[in-house]
Amino acid sequence: MQTLVLVAHPHLADSTTQQFFKASLPSTGVTYRALTAQETYDAAREQAALRQADRIIFQFPLYWYAAPASLAQWEAAVLTRTFVYGDHRYPLADKELGVVVTTGMPAQAFRRGGTENVTIDALMAPLAALAHRAHMTWLPTLAVHQFNYLDEAQKLQLVVDYQRYLTQPAPDTLANRQAWFADRLPAMVAQLAPADRATGELIVTTMTQQQDDLEALMATLAMIKEQDDD
Amino acid sequence: MQTLVLVAHPHLADSTTQQFFKASLPSTGVTYRALTAQETYDAAREQAALRQADRIIFQFPLYWYAAPASLAQWEAAVLTRTFVYGDHRYPLADKELGVVVTTGMPAQAFRRGGTENVTIDALMAPLAALAHRAHMTWLPTLAVHQFNYLDEAQKLQLVVDYQRYLTQPAPDTLANRQAWFADRLPAMVAQLAPADRATGELIVTTMTQQQDDLEALMATLAMIKEQDDD
Repeated sequence: MQTLVLVAHPHLADSTTQQFFKASLPSTGVTYRALTAQETYDAAREQAALRQADRIIFQFPLYWYAAPASLAQWEAAVLTRTFVYGDHRYPLADKELGVVVTTGMPAQAFRRGGTENVTIDALMAPLAALAHRAHMTWLPTLAVHQFNYLDEAQKLQLVVDYQRYLTQPAPDTLANRQAWFADRLPAMVAQLAPADRATGELIVTTMTQQQDDLEALMATLAMIKEQDDD
Repeated sequence: MQTLVLVAHPHLADSTTQQFFKASLPSTGVTYRALTAQETYDAAREQAALRQADRIIFQFPLYWYAAPASLAQWEAAVLTRTFVYGDHRYPLADKELGVVVTTGMPAQAFRRGGTENVTIDALMAPLAALAHRAHMTWLPTLAVHQFNYLDEAQKLQLVVDYQRYLTQPAPDTLANRQAWFADRLPAMVAQLAPADRATGELIVTTMTQQQDDLEALMATLAMIKEQDDD
């Protein structure tokens, strides 16, 4: 899977959050592209990049509850009507559209009755409408709240969540998650010190064996829960 | 009432819709301000203009379901957090925030199951969230669909609807509407040819008299309807 990350941030170099994301990028399968407000876009080139991607991610901080101006500029320059839905051709059809959005407010602010009184999902309505118009598949938004208050463990977790958001096949099921980890484990084990490698390989083997058992258990559990749905 | 209209359109001079709105502006009480993408904003001056207004209108075409980049730029430059809600002071509190939005799609496209599958109200979530944060009063949005397909009668109606949206006290009740027309009728009659003036004055007198009767009837009707609400 090829993922294109389009980052819209007016002060990219000064953003510790965005620098963190950049350092957390998976080593393969992802093209990272920073949009600057000053830029003049080569629409044909941008469109070619979109065509090549299977998953397109808009990544930005919320500025008064919306994407920054640079994303709107990019959209106006690149997403011509002819390109998106002209002649009933939809070159972006079935590609996935995801959003990585950062906010300075805590998660609980974004709900009815919360400080912001509106959900992140509701604020994403314009981008969700774009996905709908382009016949794209909308991915659940990855919202990162108050990055600078995360502790080290939370930041490590965010690295994994971010990498999965960029490259793990959707939907985010246990099976897809396990397959994603299983793909990456051998490379991680290979980087271990020789003394630890045997332990690492044992973990990989055990995890692969348990995966089959777990899937059977999950299927049973899902059936029980469904019958319980009253 | 003082109204500030902030117009965000990347090609303002080429827009027949925006030129129509400009020509339709009420002669008094409205400050019209075009935002251009190239502009560097004097935040203090813009903030002073906001403080002086009772009603603030954002006027723009939908660009991929959101406001154009120039509005986002203006927001980022002018609406500093300190200004909007710093120190628990809300200088915009109780001012009205309205949106005049134009679209190239028909009204019925903007509903669940319609071509766009989303309401105009849902797309306005970011601006409504701003109004909420600033303790402003949100006005129902004035959406103008497919302006270039309106006939002459519809365009004349739009002039009145637009002027009322900019200057008529909210909410948009019959009483407020009548008072708004009554305020403007004498000046209109004064501009009539001398031969027509007597007729004009008769219309004004009749309308004023009927207004009292109408209000009594409306109150009775409202009571009947309320009892009928089952």
